[in-house]
Amino acid sequence: MDAMHRESSAHSPPASDAPPQGQPVVMAGPSVNGRLMRGVLRRLGDPRIEFVLWSGERIATAKEPPIARVRIADRRTLLELCVRGQVGLGDAYADGCLEVDGDLGQIIEEVYRCSAQAAAATGLAARRPSRSRRARRNTLAGSRDNIHRHYDIGNEFYSLWLGETMAYTCAYYPTRDATLEEAQVAKMDHVCRKLRLSPSEAVIEAGFGWGTLALHMARRYGVTVRAFNISEEQVRFARERAAALGLTRQVEFIHDDYRNISGRCDAFVSVGMLEHVGSENYRRLGGVIARCLKPDGRGLIHSIGRNWPAPLHPWIERRIFPGAYPPSLKEMMEIFEPWDLSVLDVENLRLHYARTLEHWWQAFERARDRVAALFDERFVRMWRLYLAGSMAAFKAGELQLFQVVFAPGRSNALPWTRAHLYGS
Amino acid sequence: MDAMHRESSAHSPPASDAPPQGQPVVMAGPSVNGRLMRGVLRRLGDPRIEFVLWSGERIATAKEPPIARVRIADRRTLLELCVRGQVGLGDAYADGCLEVDGDLGQIIEEVYRCSAQAAAATGLAARRPSRSRRARRNTLAGSRDNIHRHYDIGNEFYSLWLGETMAYTCAYYPTRDATLEEAQVAKMDHVCRKLRLSPSEAVIEAGFGWGTLALHMARRYGVTVRAFNISEEQVRFARERAAALGLTRQVEFIHDDYRNISGRCDAFVSVGMLEHVGSENYRRLGGVIARCLKPDGRGLIHSIGRNWPAPLHPWIERRIFPGAYPPSLKEMMEIFEPWDLSVLDVENLRLHYARTLEHWWQAFERARDRVAALFDERFVRMWRLYLAGSMAAFKAGELQLFQVVFAPGRSNALPWTRAHLYGS
Repeated sequence: MDAMHRESSAHSPPASDAPPQGQPVVMAGPSVNGRLMRGVLRRLGDPRIEFVLWSGERIATAKEPPIARVRIADRRTLLELCVRGQVGLGDAYADGCLEVDGDLGQIIEEVYRCSAQAAAATGLAARRPSRSRRARRNTLAGSRDNIHRHYDIGNEFYSLWLGETMAYTCAYYPTRDATLEEAQVAKMDHVCRKLRLSPSEAVIEAGFGWGTLALHMARRYGVTVRAFNISEEQVRFARERAAALGLTRQVEFIHDDYRNISGRCDAFVSVGMLEHVGSENYRRLGGVIARCLKPDGRGLIHSIGRNWPAPLHPWIERRIFPGAYPPSLKEMMEIFEPWDLSVLDVENLRLHYARTLEHWWQAFERARDRVAALFDERFVRMWRLYLAGSMAAFKAGELQLFQVVFAPGRSNALPWTRAHLYGS
Repeated sequence: MDAMHRESSAHSPPASDAPPQGQPVVMAGPSVNGRLMRGVLRRLGDPRIEFVLWSGERIATAKEPPIARVRIADRRTLLELCVRGQVGLGDAYADGCLEVDGDLGQIIEEVYRCSAQAAAATGLAARRPSRSRRARRNTLAGSRDNIHRHYDIGNEFYSLWLGETMAYTCAYYPTRDATLEEAQVAKMDHVCRKLRLSPSEAVIEAGFGWGTLALHMARRYGVTVRAFNISEEQVRFARERAAALGLTRQVEFIHDDYRNISGRCDAFVSVGMLEHVGSENYRRLGGVIARCLKPDGRGLIHSIGRNWPAPLHPWIERRIFPGAYPPSLKEMMEIFEPWDLSVLDVENLRLHYARTLEHWWQAFERARDRVAALFDERFVRMWRLYLAGSMAAFKAGELQLFQVVFAPGRSNALPWTRAHLYGS
């Protein structure tokens, strides 16, 4: 397993014209296993990946030399791929029944690009979500359970690779070579500038992670913040941070659901929560916002999204983010349009999320022994797949990152241009 | 009629606590006309406008002192307002049967704001478009007829008030005190920077007006342009301009519908055409764009829009812009999502359109005698109402102006940030 990562770090896919590691080339013949494997390859859009079966049999698309090689451990694994599709693929990798020669991120990006091409050829309509693949429901209790299963697995674990900001959302890299920490701080300032915060204004934050943005807004912009979150571990952590910084009177971390938010505010902000709201609740979220915002208020929602409606990757939704759903912009508009909230600015930061995930993945690999000690080897492989796969999804255009700025539809307290976001 | 405009220019609504022009105050009694007028006022959301009937009877909302006064010429006019609603109101103004004491733009803004408040109280859902209010269809022949009825009424007329750029779309004012000409040039540069044009790239423009942007792109950015338009007068005018500038080899003005666009391009741009496309054709427009754009291409659509789906003001659609429809962002996404076009940037320039219209209206009034000589007095009043009403609609948040930048969903040839739009 380590070999996979070492090769991955070195970015050295095997030379494609010579059989690596001295194995004989076995052309895909009429074997049943080979034909099953070909079917899997075809469903993945014929990526330039060579699959090597336990028997030594090698299956690859004829169109171009492979960029990487994947070894299938046994027949059971192959059948899992055939029957359980992408979920089977993810589980097989987590179980160590798929071994990868090459860069894991590059392999997944290749699969995403080939699948997209195949889908474009057959028409995107075929990719519309089916009811059977819907994410888990986000009722009040359902959301609590879904959030608990991801965010409450241990603050120590997250602190190993999120960096000192403990910000678990897309960073903003003013230049391509900024560090993760610089980019997370720049992201918070980008958000605050978009919200045009003034000292002593009241801010409501929905979904505050480990409290990073709320504390930043209070310290750097002098606002008061009421922030809501249903992850117990995060609430505890954020309250400790506020106490350590002497900010408990300026920042209130509230353990409650966004649906129960009350009070008025000058600015409403939500960074990285919408993915967990569920599209069936967008109209209700918009109602909460419309009720909270003062007539000259401003709002910002930052969320992973899609170019068209489609469910989250089923393995991610099943194993990593239960209940999560990245909306298309059209779906997101269901938050704003029923309440005459006016969209002022949308920015797509997709490539910034790819870079953020690259940084997280690198830090994760540096901490892999400590992660394995906290959990186990299977957990390490699951989270590697999730981080590398998410990076690949943003690189391939499979996922987007939308920052949407809005205001009550009748407010004329609007910025004249966006130049203030880029001035010194 | 002139009195109305002179008062309007002076921005001097009548003192609200004293009966103007020496008329006696007649309280709204039980007269049938008074009750009919009250009903009209209520349907307008109870704006702070006093209506004076031909009999001298005065009707106003009780809630606040009026900001302006409107005189109804006769009973026939009152019945028109009751029966034909907003269309009746517009026609009565055009016919001179409504006289206005006060600022016409301010009066219409007040009506928009009050209507919106009333709608918010009863729920925006009630404002969803009904089939009976749908705009005229935009088939190939229907579009030709609709466009002919607005854009072919005379290049001389438009040149009287659009300014030397002859740009008939929202300008971009880098500072609030920029002139119309400066702002129209800045708009074109803003669009070109968003498209990241490079010399000798190929651009396709859908709907080119009088050719201003196409010629600007060719001269200032060194690109070649193939531009499409179905207005005969505009095509003729634009070709003459291209010839005068010696740009006929670099800019081709094509008299054809956007649905017939063929060929590939690095950049696709459409400024102020989408309003005339009709939402039933958005998917098809997206298909044209997806077919034209090279894999690393960029696109921009600039259009009047709405915060929620609703038809254009019925008088404007009937008398000024047949077939026009300003979409909500959700509706606009039907252009992009079916074709995996990725939205990179949305900017709402609503207040810039209010300023643009203010400049156009001022220029129109300076040229009003020449307009009256070209057409007649009724035409002057119609167009004054259209310009003042549109300015008011943008000021009141009734209309939006969206600039949407997009690219093929799998292209990574994206700008890293938007700072290049604001640098020197």
